[in-house]
Amino acid sequence: MTTTSREIHLASRPDGMPKPENFDLVSVELPDPQDGELLVKNMWMSVDPYMRGRMIDRKSYVPPFQIGKVLEGHAVGKVAQSNNPDFAKGDLVLSMNGWREAFISDGKGLQKLETFGLPEQAFLGVAGMPGLTAYAGLLRIGQPKEGETVFVSGAAGAVGSLVCQIAKIKGCRVVGSVGSKEKGEWLKSLGVDEVILYKDHPDQRSLMAALKAAAPEGVDVYFENVGGDHLVAALDAMNNFGRIVVCGMISGYNDSEPRPGPWNLFNIIGKRLRVEGLIVSDHQDMLGDFVRDLATWVPEGKVQWQETIETGIENAPTAFMNLFCGGNTGKMLVKLSD
Amino acid sequence: MTTTSREIHLASRPDGMPKPENFDLVSVELPDPQDGELLVKNMWMSVDPYMRGRMIDRKSYVPPFQIGKVLEGHAVGKVAQSNNPDFAKGDLVLSMNGWREAFISDGKGLQKLETFGLPEQAFLGVAGMPGLTAYAGLLRIGQPKEGETVFVSGAAGAVGSLVCQIAKIKGCRVVGSVGSKEKGEWLKSLGVDEVILYKDHPDQRSLMAALKAAAPEGVDVYFENVGGDHLVAALDAMNNFGRIVVCGMISGYNDSEPRPGPWNLFNIIGKRLRVEGLIVSDHQDMLGDFVRDLATWVPEGKVQWQETIETGIENAPTAFMNLFCGGNTGKMLVKLSD
Repeated sequence: MTTTSREIHLASRPDGMPKPENFDLVSVELPDPQDGELLVKNMWMSVDPYMRGRMIDRKSYVPPFQIGKVLEGHAVGKVAQSNNPDFAKGDLVLSMNGWREAFISDGKGLQKLETFGLPEQAFLGVAGMPGLTAYAGLLRIGQPKEGETVFVSGAAGAVGSLVCQIAKIKGCRVVGSVGSKEKGEWLKSLGVDEVILYKDHPDQRSLMAALKAAAPEGVDVYFENVGGDHLVAALDAMNNFGRIVVCGMISGYNDSEPRPGPWNLFNIIGKRLRVEGLIVSDHQDMLGDFVRDLATWVPEGKVQWQETIETGIENAPTAFMNLFCGGNTGKMLVKLSD
Repeated sequence: MTTTSREIHLASRPDGMPKPENFDLVSVELPDPQDGELLVKNMWMSVDPYMRGRMIDRKSYVPPFQIGKVLEGHAVGKVAQSNNPDFAKGDLVLSMNGWREAFISDGKGLQKLETFGLPEQAFLGVAGMPGLTAYAGLLRIGQPKEGETVFVSGAAGAVGSLVCQIAKIKGCRVVGSVGSKEKGEWLKSLGVDEVILYKDHPDQRSLMAALKAAAPEGVDVYFENVGGDHLVAALDAMNNFGRIVVCGMISGYNDSEPRPGPWNLFNIIGKRLRVEGLIVSDHQDMLGDFVRDLATWVPEGKVQWQETIETGIENAPTAFMNLFCGGNTGKMLVKLSD
């Protein structure tokens, strides 16, 4: 007996914005699991902006995706059959084997999931990698102090919205930049002090003025998800000894030609800024603290999150492409099965 | 009786490269010092790249110079007459009252100079502000470890040449970028491992290739004095967890229009770089350690320095302008009197 699984392959490397033709939907037949193996049916898979970088053929902190091969990413699945003593049928597992409906594994790289009462897909978002990114980036690199101002771009995203809420928990004034009124209203409902609708400020000067108005006492910590004009505006508004946590620069991910950087980098000197890059895998040592804190904050209503859900493996490319045009509020997920 | 002093006033704000007409030579008559006052005759004055920034009318970490007023900067002088009990005739004093031959002071802001056997003008360079800049920037911000590679731009300058030598003392491999063969040879004689003549690499790709060749194992600490293409090349060559000490970006100081920044800032994320601005006044607490270390290193021959000397207050603007076209090796000084 075999199991049919559909999966998404990289058909070609995107040039600029990813397009449907960069992806192939392929059916594969999975054999029954052998001794020591198990069959996992994925329930949820994650699409994340960083995956765009893996579609480029270059040396990076993770190897590039290969053309004609299945894509990878975080997924939560359920064990459907097991010949591995460490896993029982029905166990929930977290893996990097996203972009496919099912897979055979020898158990290596799988992590059994204890949900602490949270929905299982939260471990692809607020309780997973994006959550730890927000937690470690803000607290370890940004080091916000009570009363300071924290500016967050991409503030309604999976990472950004948690950064905003942790900054509020830590007693900061929070300014978030978002792409739509609805996202802004959601952030306001979470206690974010000021919201900037960046689409109302298509030119640099206007965005700079908007940030100065929203943060009249200057910005102490900038959590950078966007790059481009947002970084220019932040450099301009930063206070002396400010910290810039560089988590992402999504505005440039689809550029075919490199885009020039900010013209006002000299602020790094005059204001003695610290600008530091963040990759979540360096901060796994904070996972215990993070989960403990989150397990306190969620029942207290201090941390909320949103999800944007596409359904079916065939819609995974669409979900991914929507990341780059503001098509998600909070964590973007693809639901594959119950 | 009065003393005649000639001094340099800011005639107009430079647009782009400073020109002779931006400066005025003015004679003033100084009265005899009153009770509590003293008359200082300057022996040496310093010209430094940061002064270009003070010629712009903008908010910064030091207030801008005023048109029609005498310029300011570090100077070493000798007390010629004193009615102040804290200073005796013949005392050496360090002040911010450069750009003039003599001045009357009530003693505030003057620092009596103990030379530790070093020539007095060294306190405008290797033993003064540029020296502490190199020491604090490299050791506190750059944190080089033995065996790591340190890349220094403006490597033959007052700050850069000391950074190179301290990095060698700390057991690092050192690559320096300079503007002339002579400067390169001097750095080689100090033990610098590789020298890049940046004028041989007028385009970005060529400079990037030169740095990769000079630092085949990558760069762990980049000491940034130059900006522009040097920063692009450094971002490209940095190793994971590298540190960029941003001390100056002299290549852009005379731009009338802001110049776009590096297109490869995304390396900050992938390589988890820390980029941090440096202003020496934040690091005065290291002055004691610095002077103690320097007093050991100089007699051991581990630290050498060069000076480029112009003579006479009337040549101070020329000395300053020469800073921006590579006209100095080591510290640029103006000698005013014996």
